[in-house]
Amino acid sequence: MVEIIEKVIKKVEPLKDAVLIEGLPGIGHVGRIAAEHLIQEFQGEKIMEIYCDDFPPQVLVNDDGTMESMNNEIYIIREPIPMVVVTGNTQALSPIGQYQLSKRLVEIGIKYGARITYTLGGFGIGRIKEDPLVYVAATSKELAEKIKAHGALFRVDGGGIVGAAGLMLTFSKLMGIEGACLMGETPGYLIDPKSAGKVLGVLSKVLNIEIDMKELEKRAKEMEAFLEKIRRFEKQLEREHLMIGEKDKRQRDEDLRYIG
Amino acid sequence: MVEIIEKVIKKVEPLKDAVLIEGLPGIGHVGRIAAEHLIQEFQGEKIMEIYCDDFPPQVLVNDDGTMESMNNEIYIIREPIPMVVVTGNTQALSPIGQYQLSKRLVEIGIKYGARITYTLGGFGIGRIKEDPLVYVAATSKELAEKIKAHGALFRVDGGGIVGAAGLMLTFSKLMGIEGACLMGETPGYLIDPKSAGKVLGVLSKVLNIEIDMKELEKRAKEMEAFLEKIRRFEKQLEREHLMIGEKDKRQRDEDLRYIG
Amino acid sequence: MVEIIEKVIKKVEPLKDAVLIEGLPGIGHVGRIAAEHLIQEFQGEKIMEIYCDDFPPQVLVNDDGTMESMNNEIYIIREPIPMVVVTGNTQALSPIGQYQLSKRLVEIGIKYGARITYTLGGFGIGRIKEDPLVYVAATSKELAEKIKAHGALFRVDGGGIVGAAGLMLTFSKLMGIEGACLMGETPGYLIDPKSAGKVLGVLSKVLNIEIDMKELEKRAKEMEAFLEKIRRFEKQLEREHLMIGEKDKRQRDEDLRYIG
Amino acid sequence: MVEIIEKVIKKVEPLKDAVLIEGLPGIGHVGRIAAEHLIQEFQGEKIMEIYCDDFPPQVLVNDDGTMESMNNEIYIIREPIPMVVVTGNTQALSPIGQYQLSKRLVEIGIKYGARITYTLGGFGIGRIKEDPLVYVAATSKELAEKIKAHGALFRVDGGGIVGAAGLMLTFSKLMGIEGACLMGETPGYLIDPKSAGKVLGVLSKVLNIEIDMKELEKRAKEMEAFLEKIRRFEKQLEREHLMIGEKDKRQRDEDLRYIG
Repeated sequence: MVEIIEKVIKKVEPLKDAVLIEGLPGIGHVGRIAAEHLIQEFQGEKIMEIYCDDFPPQVLVNDDGTMESMNNEIYIIREPIPMVVVTGNTQALSPIGQYQLSKRLVEIGIKYGARITYTLGGFGIGRIKEDPLVYVAATSKELAEKIKAHGALFRVDGGGIVGAAGLMLTFSKLMGIEGACLMGETPGYLIDPKSAGKVLGVLSKVLNIEIDMKELEKRAKEMEAFLEKIRRFEKQLEREHLMIGEKDKRQRDEDLRYIG
Repeated sequence: MVEIIEKVIKKVEPLKDAVLIEGLPGIGHVGRIAAEHLIQEFQGEKIMEIYCDDFPPQVLVNDDGTMESMNNEIYIIREPIPMVVVTGNTQALSPIGQYQLSKRLVEIGIKYGARITYTLGGFGIGRIKEDPLVYVAATSKELAEKIKAHGALFRVDGGGIVGAAGLMLTFSKLMGIEGACLMGETPGYLIDPKSAGKVLGVLSKVLNIEIDMKELEKRAKEMEAFLEKIRRFEKQLEREHLMIGEKDKRQRDEDLRYIG
Repeated sequence: MVEIIEKVIKKVEPLKDAVLIEGLPGIGHVGRIAAEHLIQEFQGEKIMEIYCDDFPPQVLVNDDGTMESMNNEIYIIREPIPMVVVTGNTQALSPIGQYQLSKRLVEIGIKYGARITYTLGGFGIGRIKEDPLVYVAATSKELAEKIKAHGALFRVDGGGIVGAAGLMLTFSKLMGIEGACLMGETPGYLIDPKSAGKVLGVLSKVLNIEIDMKELEKRAKEMEAFLEKIRRFEKQLEREHLMIGEKDKRQRDEDLRYIG
Repeated sequence: MVEIIEKVIKKVEPLKDAVLIEGLPGIGHVGRIAAEHLIQEFQGEKIMEIYCDDFPPQVLVNDDGTMESMNNEIYIIREPIPMVVVTGNTQALSPIGQYQLSKRLVEIGIKYGARITYTLGGFGIGRIKEDPLVYVAATSKELAEKIKAHGALFRVDGGGIVGAAGLMLTFSKLMGIEGACLMGETPGYLIDPKSAGKVLGVLSKVLNIEIDMKELEKRAKEMEAFLEKIRRFEKQLEREHLMIGEKDKRQRDEDLRYIG
């Protein structure tokens, strides 16, 4: 069991027939860029912050002397259609954390009125493509076909979907609502607003709404700065680990049981 | 503690003096092929799906645009004799998950009328053998001898049985019923319907039933396609991991405690 | 939280002023040999088996077709003095499991009348020594000095004690009883009845009892056979892992969180 | 969930408007040296010991034959201003343990009257610096600016803070009090009383108290002896691991699930 803390930021009534949308960090940060773009474009209101003891045990440091905790956030959007949007700066670390958090996120979505789930993500192809394709995998054949009619393809690679983008479909199904994952082709080694735009393009047709894409590049630039920060932090951690190398070596051997 | 979700698919009365049979993924997929064959041959009815937050945190994608969750399944068979069959597309990932799920599976088996447990699996020998042998390990000397009389051998290699095939015997014993594991020799590097056939051959004698083996090869072919899918997914994951290599490096150093 | 199952084998009244003795698998198997020797010499009665879902998720296979579960066992000895002896074929795998099991073992000891704890183990020195020394570390200076007077030395290497042998002292202290760990020098790469004999020698003086050491070598031989079995099992596992190498590679990368 | 045991050493009334200070082991042991110095200089009284089953599963052995458990400790200081100081010989091992323990430590601090949190730590720079700088990251812009005015800098490296020093800020914020982390530049590969002195220098200005630094070097010497002990213990563990190498190899492959 992992502990999940829900900090309510703003009390709101459940929406009517809302769409639950997930865009957490993942390959090419496609899902997260797309989710943040929706929040910006449609004046999302933050209603909840979610903390979990299976998130990375750290905080991030901002240039202005403040710190930023690892968390997920729930936003609601009222127009053009009701949406509950999940984004954040991390996913859970362990399989158990991933399952429990995904379950909770779908429960929260349903509590706030969601009747269907769309998870957004990238599909790593290892190279840059002029016109990235969008794939779909859904909880039912009917939903899959409907989304295909709006320009998404079915994956024939026999792969899968890891993390919240996949597990929120499992829990949507278990809780009696439909769901689909939209995946945009992305090289994988860079932040990819183009792929996020393609995913949003299909989503807008499926939801029958219009999404202005002008600011998408700007969002991606901001996120690039954030990720550069993370990357430098990782370098710092590595450096510090090298310094305390001996301690590490021991930790790697976690099997201590045969020492009496 | 891991959470285990039991989704009842069909409500049924407990069977009378049933046999609990386990065939989950394992080496050579011997147990799983055997279990699926029993379900097909004897018109097994799916009565339950089991989800566990210690399963791989992912879903699989089908060619028709639908997704498939990681789960275990419980089938009942009424004729020729009552059976409760456990199969699925995964096992739990951690020791704790393995123990807790195995315990629950035996509890479910007993609840539906099981009075004895047979777990089916492969025994990797690293090479192809014309006529693979079948081994047995049981919760009592008497049961072991009885199964030996039907063609199984005792292992003298001093080894063991890992996962549900082993732990369901531990929990059968703790819950007061007998159990045995039937292990078919298998190269280990390929799906092995021949070994599954040998295991079913011994099982049919032990249970005094007839099992038509004609379709066994076909089942194995279908499973091969499924596993090829898994394999490609793994390649995809590896590729994506390479892309986000820096993040990985950090995660591998899980000992963060000496950074203040 | 890990689950610990206590299977009562024989109901007995608590002993009076008993000594809790721990000898679980560890380096040189010094503690385990010593504990099993006490059980044999003084006709220990098994009163409890302990199962834990943080034990290795497997069973062992015996030559006679039966299987053996991973567990710890509690024995009581009535003469020459009351003892509660803990032994078994494994220790818990994770830190959390180690702590919780050690806590429970001390609770059980106290429940059955223990008023002091002695944990027995090896101290690896990497070479064979004609006359291995015995070291002590105790929960109080007084107890340490008392045991030193019976031939044990204080360790000046600044090291520690890992696993149940150490943690049972922590929990003895927290539960208000004293405790000490006796550690016999041992090469580390072989089963060491000589070191176990030295440890028992100091223990016999501390407890003011006589322990016949004639059968000690025999016990060690039996244990050697058991460990050879484990070793072969490990080779089997390695072989099987090689066969399913692709699956493994994926599992090693446990950080799946950045795949959306 | 991890279990946290609070052993009350001395019952005291909550302090009035106290400052919660954390100095647990970390890079350069900057935080721990600083915290221990405060405790010594201002006659801190130990009021609680905290044990956690996510601490390293071991005890340390002292030269006088006694043992030392892994734990955290809570001290209160009454003059010159009320403080609740957290120190100890370890941090939790896993992310979940880190989160849960940090949460509990802030709860305990608040229970004993804390109204603001200062966590102390090192910031590894990989080289020795004549005049190490002190950085700050705070839960609010106001607090950050206030501390900057007393000589701390804002970090522009885009990094983070791992472990209790970071997470106690997250939980301070969640529980409605402010907090800041003071980080002293430190090479990382040695115990650093100079950096600890710089951190205490900023802290003394922020808290408007005087801290005599004369004994700081002495504390660092004592801690160096302790860490040398830990280092030798690690060497011992490595040596013992080498001896039981085969067992280790198996443990490293934790994915046992595909063995049926």
